[in-house]
Amino acid sequence: MFSNALKKIKETCPLVHNITNYVTVNDCANVLLSLGASPIMADDELEVEEITSMSSALVINIGTLNSRTVQSMILAGKKANEMNIPVVLDPVGAGASRLRTETTFRLLNEIKFTAIRGNISEIKTIGSLSSTTRGVDADNSDSITHEKISDTAEFAKKLSIATGAVISITGAIDIVSDREKSYIIKNGHPMMSKISGTGCMLSSITGAFAASGDNILDSCAAAVCTMGICGEEAYEKIMKSGSGTSSFKTHLIDYMGIMDDNVLEGRAKIEIR
Amino acid sequence: MFSNALKKIKETCPLVHNITNYVTVNDCANVLLSLGASPIMADDELEVEEITSMSSALVINIGTLNSRTVQSMILAGKKANEMNIPVVLDPVGAGASRLRTETTFRLLNEIKFTAIRGNISEIKTIGSLSSTTRGVDADNSDSITHEKISDTAEFAKKLSIATGAVISITGAIDIVSDREKSYIIKNGHPMMSKISGTGCMLSSITGAFAASGDNILDSCAAAVCTMGICGEEAYEKIMKSGSGTSSFKTHLIDYMGIMDDNVLEGRAKIEIR
Amino acid sequence: MFSNALKKIKETCPLVHNITNYVTVNDCANVLLSLGASPIMADDELEVEEITSMSSALVINIGTLNSRTVQSMILAGKKANEMNIPVVLDPVGAGASRLRTETTFRLLNEIKFTAIRGNISEIKTIGSLSSTTRGVDADNSDSITHEKISDTAEFAKKLSIATGAVISITGAIDIVSDREKSYIIKNGHPMMSKISGTGCMLSSITGAFAASGDNILDSCAAAVCTMGICGEEAYEKIMKSGSGTSSFKTHLIDYMGIMDDNVLEGRAKIEIR
Repeated sequence: MFSNALKKIKETCPLVHNITNYVTVNDCANVLLSLGASPIMADDELEVEEITSMSSALVINIGTLNSRTVQSMILAGKKANEMNIPVVLDPVGAGASRLRTETTFRLLNEIKFTAIRGNISEIKTIGSLSSTTRGVDADNSDSITHEKISDTAEFAKKLSIATGAVISITGAIDIVSDREKSYIIKNGHPMMSKISGTGCMLSSITGAFAASGDNILDSCAAAVCTMGICGEEAYEKIMKSGSGTSSFKTHLIDYMGIMDDNVLEGRAKIEIR
Repeated sequence: MFSNALKKIKETCPLVHNITNYVTVNDCANVLLSLGASPIMADDELEVEEITSMSSALVINIGTLNSRTVQSMILAGKKANEMNIPVVLDPVGAGASRLRTETTFRLLNEIKFTAIRGNISEIKTIGSLSSTTRGVDADNSDSITHEKISDTAEFAKKLSIATGAVISITGAIDIVSDREKSYIIKNGHPMMSKISGTGCMLSSITGAFAASGDNILDSCAAAVCTMGICGEEAYEKIMKSGSGTSSFKTHLIDYMGIMDDNVLEGRAKIEIR
Repeated sequence: MFSNALKKIKETCPLVHNITNYVTVNDCANVLLSLGASPIMADDELEVEEITSMSSALVINIGTLNSRTVQSMILAGKKANEMNIPVVLDPVGAGASRLRTETTFRLLNEIKFTAIRGNISEIKTIGSLSSTTRGVDADNSDSITHEKISDTAEFAKKLSIATGAVISITGAIDIVSDREKSYIIKNGHPMMSKISGTGCMLSSITGAFAASGDNILDSCAAAVCTMGICGEEAYEKIMKSGSGTSSFKTHLIDYMGIMDDNVLEGRAKIEIR
């Protein structure tokens, strides 16, 4: 179903402009390179529009937000919209501070996002900001249980309608929705939450998949499955060698460059809801 | 003697707010996760108080100091004091520039620190700022020799009285002191000085140990022993595989999540002075 | 020909001040430590001159440029010139945005660089700024082909005359030139372009080699060969273990600390043009 998504990335080598945090920025650069895409990081308002102009996708990640970079995010986002290239939002910590929540709100007002990827609590913060989704009673805990899948998928669809973006909610179970269709994805491994950056890396590769695919929903789902399969593979490797979380991250990024579309199609655990 | 320090961290999963440098920030996040704690990095003055408010400990590291973040450090530190959660200071490079020395002085004046962790030259810079310790003739070289242990332990006790903080001086031999008691710790391996970030990582995990332990002195000592044992284990691993410093760092972070309280109690090389 | 370059670094342990980007800064610190040098990262204008004053070399890398750090770069560069220690420029992305191009121009006007290291398109951007090299018709593609080696070496010599710096152009084939002599270097592996930071790491170790060597041209060439050999070795290792790009980076930094002058002399693929 993913129509050679990985092969296409390797062929087109999309340049992905990341305005991101300083915690996981190196992992984002390296996972994009391993995947076959090309990263560029630039966050000064004097240059972001030019950098976006030469890029195939823009990823905005608010992980270590500061006042200097918010303006850069808006300038770059508007430029990306103007150029009609995909823009991904990773609202890291939305809901955890007023700065993050308000910045997320401001970004959503000024930029049309192609995809928004976050955990359930970040995405629900966005939901609470959007009048059309107000009142949707999504699960209040931070994980998507089997019982709550349908409710969460419904919430994601409504948020997709409200924002115009594909919504990727990631956790033990992942949900990727546009306004009509939800994918429920069960790839991945709990160890992925024991390293810093799996979410950020996923947002960055979502930019690469969206840049080289035809259908945004499928591109976002392909990114989620790919990341999850890399996590599964990395976990198998550390089990064999008796190593731990840092080796896990190394193997995960390694496998991003090793896996191919056959592995992706064969191992994707995905159903339509 | 460490009363299940590691188990308690895994059970309580303390959220540790780090205002730190951009060189080793990723290692700090990953070592906290490997240990079983939860990291959060936020340094903008518009949000640090809120982030500290939801945290169980605050770690202030001046590794790549700039004027924008000093004010954030002070705001977060005051909030942590108000909430009575542990605050750890890592005065990276204090003494190397006036900016670092004066910022350290300012932080010490405005915030009551629970623990201060640095190498001997950084800690002696702090000693020289404190009138009650002025004149203490601690070792002027950058390492604590066997001969100088008693003098340095005495200096650390006096500095603990002057600052109200537990003092962790780390190097080939480590000294952890409160106003009355010093632990002399001989865990660790020289290879730890061949990677960037062992000091920063130790300061970050000191925050986690302090957040979940009852006795600050013992918590700081448990953090130092844990880090040292991880270094010993990582060294053994690279000796077996013939690898080098970058593998050493990977193994060190790996082992942070693998070791348990039995290993900690069994391998801690600690004596009271 | 490299007169024990690696041994000298290990003996003198030069302190290398890096004003660099937040993407690869951790790799730069760790590769310097693995090599036997000592890194220091500081970018605030209130302290850079003091930090440069105690250092043996300065490396300026514009990878994630912002207005706050440009002034710091100039202050530190002027101080390094005053002290007569080597200053290396890594003009990351020069030509990709006006900010980067103009900043590169400004740095070249205000600081006398000992060495400039970049890829062919970055170095050609510098060439286009320099009136004495205007009109030099170097290869317009981003790689140095066998056919274009002579032209590129000639261009590098002219740019060395114009700037006073040794010019290191790196890619599949590397060219290191002063005003009279060019080294053509064929070490390295294509996998080096699949990780973030090989260029930045090379610029940082160029600072260490220049600080401890007698001849700048030979020091720059030794750095390029050393980096390339580490890449070759890392590639062999991942081939044996079936791993990928992230393991490649680990092995590369590992080998930086394992190789010695015999390996460097024995494996350097270098010819004079």
